[in-house]
Amino acid sequence: MAERTWGVYLSGEIHSDWRERIEAGTREAGLPVDFSAPVTDHAASDDAGTGTLGEESTPFWRDHMGAGVNAIRTQTLIRAADIVVVRFGDKYRQWNAAFDAGFAAALDKPVITLHDTELDHALKEVDRAAEATARTAEQVVDVLRYVIRGELP
Amino acid sequence: MAERTWGVYLSGEIHSDWRERIEAGTREAGLPVDFSAPVTDHAASDDAGTGTLGEESTPFWRDHMGAGVNAIRTQTLIRAADIVVVRFGDKYRQWNAAFDAGFAAALDKPVITLHDTELDHALKEVDRAAEATARTAEQVVDVLRYVIRGELP
Amino acid sequence: MAERTWGVYLSGEIHSDWRERIEAGTREAGLPVDFSAPVTDHAASDDAGTGTLGEESTPFWRDHMGAGVNAIRTQTLIRAADIVVVRFGDKYRQWNAAFDAGFAAALDKPVITLHDTELDHALKEVDRAAEATARTAEQVVDVLRYVIRGELP
Amino acid sequence: MAERTWGVYLSGEIHSDWRERIEAGTREAGLPVDFSAPVTDHAASDDAGTGTLGEESTPFWRDHMGAGVNAIRTQTLIRAADIVVVRFGDKYRQWNAAFDAGFAAALDKPVITLHDTELDHALKEVDRAAEATARTAEQVVDVLRYVIRGELP
Amino acid sequence: MAERTWGVYLSGEIHSDWRERIEAGTREAGLPVDFSAPVTDHAASDDAGTGTLGEESTPFWRDHMGAGVNAIRTQTLIRAADIVVVRFGDKYRQWNAAFDAGFAAALDKPVITLHDTELDHALKEVDRAAEATARTAEQVVDVLRYVIRGELP
Amino acid sequence: MAERTWGVYLSGEIHSDWRERIEAGTREAGLPVDFSAPVTDHAASDDAGTGTLGEESTPFWRDHMGAGVNAIRTQTLIRAADIVVVRFGDKYRQWNAAFDAGFAAALDKPVITLHDTELDHALKEVDRAAEATARTAEQVVDVLRYVIRGELP
Amino acid sequence: MAERTWGVYLSGEIHSDWRERIEAGTREAGLPVDFSAPVTDHAASDDAGTGTLGEESTPFWRDHMGAGVNAIRTQTLIRAADIVVVRFGDKYRQWNAAFDAGFAAALDKPVITLHDTELDHALKEVDRAAEATARTAEQVVDVLRYVIRGELP
Amino acid sequence: MAERTWGVYLSGEIHSDWRERIEAGTREAGLPVDFSAPVTDHAASDDAGTGTLGEESTPFWRDHMGAGVNAIRTQTLIRAADIVVVRFGDKYRQWNAAFDAGFAAALDKPVITLHDTELDHALKEVDRAAEATARTAEQVVDVLRYVIRGELP
Repeated sequence: MAERTWGVYLSGEIHSDWRERIEAGTREAGLPVDFSAPVTDHAASDDAGTGTLGEESTPFWRDHMGAGVNAIRTQTLIRAADIVVVRFGDKYRQWNAAFDAGFAAALDKPVITLHDTELDHALKEVDRAAEATARTAEQVVDVLRYVIRGELP
Repeated sequence: MAERTWGVYLSGEIHSDWRERIEAGTREAGLPVDFSAPVTDHAASDDAGTGTLGEESTPFWRDHMGAGVNAIRTQTLIRAADIVVVRFGDKYRQWNAAFDAGFAAALDKPVITLHDTELDHALKEVDRAAEATARTAEQVVDVLRYVIRGELP
Repeated sequence: MAERTWGVYLSGEIHSDWRERIEAGTREAGLPVDFSAPVTDHAASDDAGTGTLGEESTPFWRDHMGAGVNAIRTQTLIRAADIVVVRFGDKYRQWNAAFDAGFAAALDKPVITLHDTELDHALKEVDRAAEATARTAEQVVDVLRYVIRGELP
Repeated sequence: MAERTWGVYLSGEIHSDWRERIEAGTREAGLPVDFSAPVTDHAASDDAGTGTLGEESTPFWRDHMGAGVNAIRTQTLIRAADIVVVRFGDKYRQWNAAFDAGFAAALDKPVITLHDTELDHALKEVDRAAEATARTAEQVVDVLRYVIRGELP
Repeated sequence: MAERTWGVYLSGEIHSDWRERIEAGTREAGLPVDFSAPVTDHAASDDAGTGTLGEESTPFWRDHMGAGVNAIRTQTLIRAADIVVVRFGDKYRQWNAAFDAGFAAALDKPVITLHDTELDHALKEVDRAAEATARTAEQVVDVLRYVIRGELP
Repeated sequence: MAERTWGVYLSGEIHSDWRERIEAGTREAGLPVDFSAPVTDHAASDDAGTGTLGEESTPFWRDHMGAGVNAIRTQTLIRAADIVVVRFGDKYRQWNAAFDAGFAAALDKPVITLHDTELDHALKEVDRAAEATARTAEQVVDVLRYVIRGELP
Repeated sequence: MAERTWGVYLSGEIHSDWRERIEAGTREAGLPVDFSAPVTDHAASDDAGTGTLGEESTPFWRDHMGAGVNAIRTQTLIRAADIVVVRFGDKYRQWNAAFDAGFAAALDKPVITLHDTELDHALKEVDRAAEATARTAEQVVDVLRYVIRGELP
Repeated sequence: MAERTWGVYLSGEIHSDWRERIEAGTREAGLPVDFSAPVTDHAASDDAGTGTLGEESTPFWRDHMGAGVNAIRTQTLIRAADIVVVRFGDKYRQWNAAFDAGFAAALDKPVITLHDTELDHALKEVDRAAEATARTAEQVVDVLRYVIRGELP
C-alpha cells in the first residue's frame, strides 16, 4: 500500500520541548508526518496584531488584533490536519488549548490529549472527546507509529 | 413581526449565581428565551457515570464515564442552541468552558463570553472567536434584549 | 395540503418603508409568513455595542463592538430563514446588504434582490446569485404569494 | 516542519495596483503562496457572458450572463482558498467585494479586509466578520508572513 | 410512541391525478403526512416570472425568470421534506423531475420513484438512487403506511 | 428552564422487551422523550418490500426491496433523533444494529450502547464510538433521566 | 499566479462527439483541465453490473446492478470536479443527465448546460440552476478559457 | 483524460487473504489505486491501546483504549477514501465491519460489500446501503476496473 503523508497539528503548551520530542521521535521512526502548530514564540504571538496591522494602546484590543491574526493560522491548520494533539502543561491556564480541542472535536478531527495524571479530573471533558490520552511525548510517537504503520514499540 | 423563541446555552462556571441573574433579568425583561445548561450540581456531575452505569474504581475511567454521560447532554444542547454564553470565573481551570467555546465556534454558533478584565489576556483567543465579551450578567441580558428586541437599556 | 409558515428575512436599506410595504401586502394577502430583519433603528444599531457592553472611545472598536452584537441577531435570523430579501436603496454604500446576500447565497438560501434598474450593472454579481430581482415591494409580495400559494396577481 | 503552500484569494477593487503589491511583497519574502483572483480586466469581465455564449441586447441579461460566467471562476477559487483578502477602494460601489466577503465568511474562510479608515463605519459589519483589517498592501504581506512563518517585520 | 408528522414532497408529472390519489389514500389511512409540491397549474407555473416580476419578451429569459421563482418554492420544500416522491409520466421530457431526484439524493433525502415499467431502462440511474420504485399511487401510500406505522396492507 | 422534548431512537434487537422497559421507565420517571424505532415486527419487516411494492421471487432482491423501504423509516428517524440507543442481544448477527451505530456516529449523534459484558470485546469499536455503554434497560433510563433532568437515581 | 488544474466533469449525451470537441478545443487552447466523464461506451455501461458482479435475468435488477456500479464512478467524479458540464442531445430521454445536474447543483458545483434552443423550455429549471447555458462545444471551451485565463475569444 | 488515483479502503475480515487478492488483481490490471485498511495484525490491533499508552488491567477499558487508537486510523482513512469495500467472512461477529459500512454510508462514500450468499439475509440493510455486492475478490477488481477504466472483463 502506498504511504500517505499524515497531517498532525500540535496545539497547546509553548514553554516546554514536547513538540521537538514528538518531531524527533517521528523523524527517527521514519514516519511520513507533516507537523503544524501555532506560532510558539510567545513574544511574537503576543505582538501578532500590532506587529503587522499597526499600533493599538488598549490591551483588550491589542490582544483582539493579535488573536485574530493568530486565528488565521491556527484555524486553517487545524482544518487541514488529520489529527490534533493537544498538550496541557502545569503552568498557565491554557484556555486556547482547550478551545482548540473543542474546535477540532466539532470538526470531527481525532484528538490526542497529552498531560500529567494530576490534570485528569480537570480535563475529563476534553479527554472524553479525545481518542487517546497520552502522558509523554514518546507515547504520542508510539500512537502515530501504530496509526500510520500498524507497528507497536 | 412574530416573536421567535431564542435558545441560549449557558456554559461554564458553576459556583456563582450568574445563570440565575441572567435568567432573572431575561424574565424581568419579558424576553422569549429558552435557557439550557450543563448539569450545575457539581457532585451529581462528577457522579454522572457511576451513578447511572455502575461502579468504577479507577479515577480516570470514573471521570471518563461521567464525562461521556455529561457530553450527551451538553453537546446536544449546544447543537440545539442559537447562542452560547460562556462564563469564566476566577476559580478552577474551567477547561470545559473553553472546550465548549471552541466547539460552539466551529459549529458557527454565536458566542458571548463573560469574565472579568483580569482574565482578558489569558482568554484572548476565546474572546476573539466570540461576537461579544461581557463583564456582568446584566450586560448579557442587555445584549439579549438588543438582539431579540432591538432595544437598548 | 397543510400550510407551512415561511420565514423571510428582510436585509438592507433602513431609510425607506419597503419592509412595511412588504409586510402590509403579505398580511393583506393572508400569507403565512414570519418576517425577521436586522435592527432598523439606525441610532440604536450604531450604539449596539457601547449601549450593552460599556463605553469605547475609539470609533473603529466602537463599530466593531456594535457589529458583533448586531451579527448575533442577523446571522442567527438569516440561518433560520427560508428566503432572504435584500434591498438596495439609492443612498449609502450598503455593503452590509451585499455581505448578507453573499452570506445567504453560500448557505444555499434563496435570495430575492430588490432595487431600481439604475443599480443593475453595479449589482450584477448579487443579482446573479439571486433567484429573482424585483423592482418594487409589491413585486416581492407577488413572488411570495406565488411561492407559497401558487397564485398569480 | 514541511512548508505548505497557502491559497490566498484577492477579492475586490480592480483599479489600483494592490494585488501586484501584495504579490511582489510575498515573492520578495519568499512566502509559499498561490494567489487567485477574479478576472481583473474590467472590459473582459463585463463581456464575459456575451463574449463566450453569444450576443444579448438587454443590458440586464447581458450582465446576468457575464456574472454567471464570472461566478464559475470566483466561487470555485474562493472555495479552494485558505484565506480571502477583500479590498475596498474609494471609487465605485464594490458590492461584489462585500458579497464575496459574506460568501467567504459563511464558508468559514478567514477574511482579511483592506481599506482606508474613512470607510470604517460603512464597512463595520464586513470588518467584524474578518480576522484582520489592514490599511496597506504591505500590512497584508506582513500578516501573511506571520501567519505562514511566524515572523514579524 | 408519539406520532411525528412526516413531510413528503411530490415531484414530477402535473398532468394526471397521482398526487390526489396519494393524498386521498394517505388521508383515508389516517397517516400524519404534510404533503408539499411544486405549483401544478401549468399555465401559472409558466408565468411565474413575468406574472410577478414584470414583462419579458425573450422566451429564454422569460423561462429563466419563471424557473427562478419556482425554484424558491421547490428547493425550499425539498430541503424541508423527509421523503421525496418523484413521478415520471409517459408524456413530456420531465427533466425537472429527474433534476429534483438528483437534488434530493445529493441532500440525502430518501427518494421514492413512481413510473411504469416501460420507463425502467431510461430511469435506471434515478431508480438506483431511490430507496423504492413504485408502479401505482396506491403502492406509494402502502410504503408511507409501512414507513410511518409499520403496517402492511 | 423550559423543558425540551428529547428524541431517542432505539436501534437493534427486536426479540426481547428492552424497548418496552426503557419506555416504561421513562414514562414512570415523567421524562419528556419521544421514542422512535425501526419496525420491530420481524415478519412485517421482512415483507416490507414485497408487501408494498409487489412480488419478487429472488431472495436477494426481495430483501433488497424490503431493506430499501425500511431504510426510508430508519434513516429518517435516526437523522431526526437527538440520541441513538443501540441494543445488541445474544442471538443473531445484528449487523444492522452495528450499521446504525456507525451511521449515527458519522452524523455526530450521541450513541448509547446496551449489551452484556460477554459481547464487550466483539463490540469494542462500537462502544468506543458511543458516549455510554449500559448493561440494562434501567441504566439507559437512568442515563436519560440524568441527561434530561440532571438527577441521579 | 500559479496555474491550478481544473477538474471538469462532462455529463450527458453519449452519442455525439461533443466531449471530444471540448477536449480538443481545451487542449488546443493549452488550458490546464482534467476532464472526467461517465463511461460513454453504451454497451459497456448497460453491462456494468452483470459484466462485473454476475448474471441477472430480470431486466429491472440487471439495470439496478449496472446503475449501482456506474454510480460509484459518476458520483465520485462529480464530487471531485470543480465544474460540471451537462449536455442534452435531441435523442433519448437523458434523465440521468438531468439527475446529474440536480445532484451537482445541490453540491454547489457550478453547472454549464449545453443544448439547442429547441430544448430551452423543457430544460428551464435545469438551465436556471446552471451558471451558463451554451449552444456549442466551442462555447464551452470559450467559457473554460475565460474562467481559467480571463481571456475572451 | 488524465488518470486520477483512486483511494479504496478495505474494511472487515482480517483472517483471509481477500485484501491481498484485490491488491494483486488491481496491480495486475495496472489500475491507479491507493489502498488503505485497518491494522490487520489481530494481536497488534488488540494491543493498540496498552501497547502505546500504557498498561490497563480491566478488559473493558483495555479494549476501549485500543479501539480509540484504532479509530484514529480507521476513521481518518475512511474519510479520505473514495470507495469503501466491506468484507464479511463466515467467522466472528464482525460488528466493526458493519459499523464502518454505516459510517461510510452516512459520509456518502460509495460502499461495495463482499460476502457469500448465505449471509445475504443477515446483511440486507448493509447491502441496500451499498452500490454493489460482490461474491469474490475478483469481482471487486472487476468493479474497480470498470469504475476507473470503463472496461469489462
